[in-house]
Amino acid sequence: ARPKVGYYYTGKNVMSMLTEQISRIKVRDVQSVPVVITASTSVYDAVVTMFLEDVGSVYIVEPAGILTGVVSRKDVLKVAMGGSDLHKMPVKVLMTPMPKIVVTSPDDSILTAAKKIIDNEVDSLPVVAIADHQETKAYEVIGRLTKTNIARLFVELGEGRGGEHYS
Amino acid sequence: ARPKVGYYYTGKNVMSMLTEQISRIKVRDVQSVPVVITASTSVYDAVVTMFLEDVGSVYIVEPAGILTGVVSRKDVLKVAMGGSDLHKMPVKVLMTPMPKIVVTSPDDSILTAAKKIIDNEVDSLPVVAIADHQETKAYEVIGRLTKTNIARLFVELGEGRGGEHYS
Repeated sequence: ARPKVGYYYTGKNVMSMLTEQISRIKVRDVQSVPVVITASTSVYDAVVTMFLEDVGSVYIVEPAGILTGVVSRKDVLKVAMGGSDLHKMPVKVLMTPMPKIVVTSPDDSILTAAKKIIDNEVDSLPVVAIADHQETKAYEVIGRLTKTNIARLFVELGEGRGGEHYS
Repeated sequence: ARPKVGYYYTGKNVMSMLTEQISRIKVRDVQSVPVVITASTSVYDAVVTMFLEDVGSVYIVEPAGILTGVVSRKDVLKVAMGGSDLHKMPVKVLMTPMPKIVVTSPDDSILTAAKKIIDNEVDSLPVVAIADHQETKAYEVIGRLTKTNIARLFVELGEGRGGEHYS
């Protein structure tokens, strides 16, 4: 008879348990608060907001919180190099607009969302809820998922804390 | 007698195995190639390098590859907002200089390194080897560890790939 104790110590089974544990963690368990501005905000003020809030991306929304664009440090840096007057330029000019924005839902598994971040080479994903808006489907911004959230979760899991995410 | 099969399915033990597996992965297993410039490079050219190489930070080295500074997108953006002439300003003026730079070794566990990234709120760590240089200890830059490396590893582990890191 084969031994029944210690079976799960083989690499394959540890890996599959690891996969199972990670797949239970949802975006909502680790997401951060979103930082939002309006499309008419100047690029300069958008950058000031980025520094004050210490975020790498800000989301552009319509009054009802509906996502219309994303601006990152990288986007701004590109424009700043060109010598434009950032006080006069609205973020609308350089933002990545919908529907080009890659988003995630709070109910997505953190693994699916992390894969989106890697595959699309972005620093963060807006966490959104589907909203009815002007008779079309639209996304309401309710959070922000960043590589920092993923790295922090990795540290928690590696240190054996993170059990709180497994509900 | 208590059952001997299925014991490891309890949360606590899965977590400790997960911790053990993660602790075996070293920085060298996931690090990227570093992007380096010299201290006299203009801020403008440093940003061009960042865009061409698609990195968020570049490392400033002396000719022997010895680390002297780090410049990030965030550092450059701050200066660009101030209206300075980025063509005339050398990166030396705005870089974070040694010994203030948080570094990691290729032999460090990925968990230790990820914790440094989170605790020090940086986007990347220069991966360094200790070198004898001008009769003082110095760091030679041999790699770059980013939040992207951590997020990619997380995805690999979550998908049950990543076994290649466990040697």
